[in-house]
Amino acid sequence: MATLRVPDVVPSPRQDCERLRKAFQGLGTDEKAVIKVLGHRNASQRRIIGETYQQLYDKCLIDDLNAELSGDFRKAVILWIYDPPERDARLANEALNSRRKGVNELQVIVEIACASSPHHLIAVRQAYSILFDSSLEEDIISNVPMPLQKVLVSLVSSYRYDKNVVDSAIANSEAAKLHEVIKTKKLDHDDFLSILSTRNVFQLKETFLHYKKNYGNSIDEDILNCGKGNLESILKVAIWCIDAPEKHFAEVTRASIVGLGTDEDSLTRVIVTRAEIDMMKVKKEYFNTNKTSLDSAVIGDTSGDYQDFLMALLGTNV
Amino acid sequence: MATLRVPDVVPSPRQDCERLRKAFQGLGTDEKAVIKVLGHRNASQRRIIGETYQQLYDKCLIDDLNAELSGDFRKAVILWIYDPPERDARLANEALNSRRKGVNELQVIVEIACASSPHHLIAVRQAYSILFDSSLEEDIISNVPMPLQKVLVSLVSSYRYDKNVVDSAIANSEAAKLHEVIKTKKLDHDDFLSILSTRNVFQLKETFLHYKKNYGNSIDEDILNCGKGNLESILKVAIWCIDAPEKHFAEVTRASIVGLGTDEDSLTRVIVTRAEIDMMKVKKEYFNTNKTSLDSAVIGDTSGDYQDFLMALLGTNV
Repeated sequence: MATLRVPDVVPSPRQDCERLRKAFQGLGTDEKAVIKVLGHRNASQRRIIGETYQQLYDKCLIDDLNAELSGDFRKAVILWIYDPPERDARLANEALNSRRKGVNELQVIVEIACASSPHHLIAVRQAYSILFDSSLEEDIISNVPMPLQKVLVSLVSSYRYDKNVVDSAIANSEAAKLHEVIKTKKLDHDDFLSILSTRNVFQLKETFLHYKKNYGNSIDEDILNCGKGNLESILKVAIWCIDAPEKHFAEVTRASIVGLGTDEDSLTRVIVTRAEIDMMKVKKEYFNTNKTSLDSAVIGDTSGDYQDFLMALLGTNV
Repeated sequence: MATLRVPDVVPSPRQDCERLRKAFQGLGTDEKAVIKVLGHRNASQRRIIGETYQQLYDKCLIDDLNAELSGDFRKAVILWIYDPPERDARLANEALNSRRKGVNELQVIVEIACASSPHHLIAVRQAYSILFDSSLEEDIISNVPMPLQKVLVSLVSSYRYDKNVVDSAIANSEAAKLHEVIKTKKLDHDDFLSILSTRNVFQLKETFLHYKKNYGNSIDEDILNCGKGNLESILKVAIWCIDAPEKHFAEVTRASIVGLGTDEDSLTRVIVTRAEIDMMKVKKEYFNTNKTSLDSAVIGDTSGDYQDFLMALLGTNV
């Protein structure tokens, strides 16, 4: 389901480093070589390349990339180079420190909490506290007003059971509880959040099915019918990230592309964070919803090395 | 601060296993040998002994201990043999499945959440879901009524920053928030729980100091003045486990010993879970509060192999 393409025969980390080093030397940078190497290595290969680079040249690869590249291309490559938990910790921190803390910024925290494995979420929390000298939850509390704060803390604190164990009777009764809360429009109710943040993903999908069967609308529709505020929007993101992450990520890419100008940060985030997970599904979902391929949409809205790099991660530009 | 005494020269795991195997053979069991070996090995040594035993005899050491030992001695040795995260996961599950779910039972969950390292708490949550096919939080929600449920879920979901970083201004303002909540007697208020479950332990100690300085009473006194229910009691346990775990554990041992009969399960739990952590401080605290040593209290209330084993863990019976 990943779109990242790693060659059958991967050069040694030393060879990769030498190629990168060569790309940085002389006048200008050979960006194509950077994409050729880093755009086709998985997370553990990239980590080893970073370590080998440090050993060989006594320099930090990220620093060199920072000095040699520029613009959105630089941002994308560096985000790609970080170890995934560190990358997500940095994205969360950036969201919490952004001036505008709307759903567009804060949804990355929901993605980390609801569209990642439980182990990854813990690894992000560990990376966060190492990098920023405080827990992710503390920083949410300091930076996000209620009731969004309560929702986010609840979601990032979860450590869901990760196996497919489903109890249909519980799904039915919890669908009723969720419906009750939605009817009263108290979306930050403890019952609501505890179901959403403690149940395993398979159980929740079953609960959402029961919800639709028993009450007509899907739960995300009913949530959005409660109002047009940030609370409704962020809960809809949570439901989508749990139920079908590809739907959420296809929607974020669509929103980043449509209209005047492109939201490069969001586009980069989706492609970088999902290329090794479920980007194939995101592309399929994108095509089904928009009747055009994500590849052509990205080509239409981006250019140069940035475009080439994204296409490499999308598995198109091999 | 641990009381466990490991000999300077530790026999090889193979020698330890042979000694245990010999203790199990023939008529009756040589309990003294079991204590001599297992009562003087740390957690990682015990784990290796368990693995080696399995390799040498194709039998599970825990099964053999179960068959060879009996009564409180057996329960204590087996609790001691589990890897600490698995042990705590089992203790939490036992509490959640006990018929009576009062503070005496449920406080073990607070101990795990507030008197352990953040990493240990995560390891317990991982062990719990592997052992019991659901998350610890889910089982709390299924088994504990509100508002205790909310407090426990909030505490076990924490992943506190583990370094000594303290902000005195925040301590002051959060002491005021806590005081406000206590004044209104709404002890399950979101503000109260989010401070208690997200701040690092050093920061919280500072907050409790500010509380006492600014409002006269200590925060645990003020909590207990709100009422005599389970909510007040469990929050007092949380405060003590954060502020001075030795105070809490000295109190639990005292309560397990005083009066008619002994609460062996609680006594065992404290000595087994703290022998490798801070039992020396617990003993000191016990002596200061009760003007008698914990050792002599244990000797007065227990007997036989059970007593010998506890005394070994208390560092007295070498």
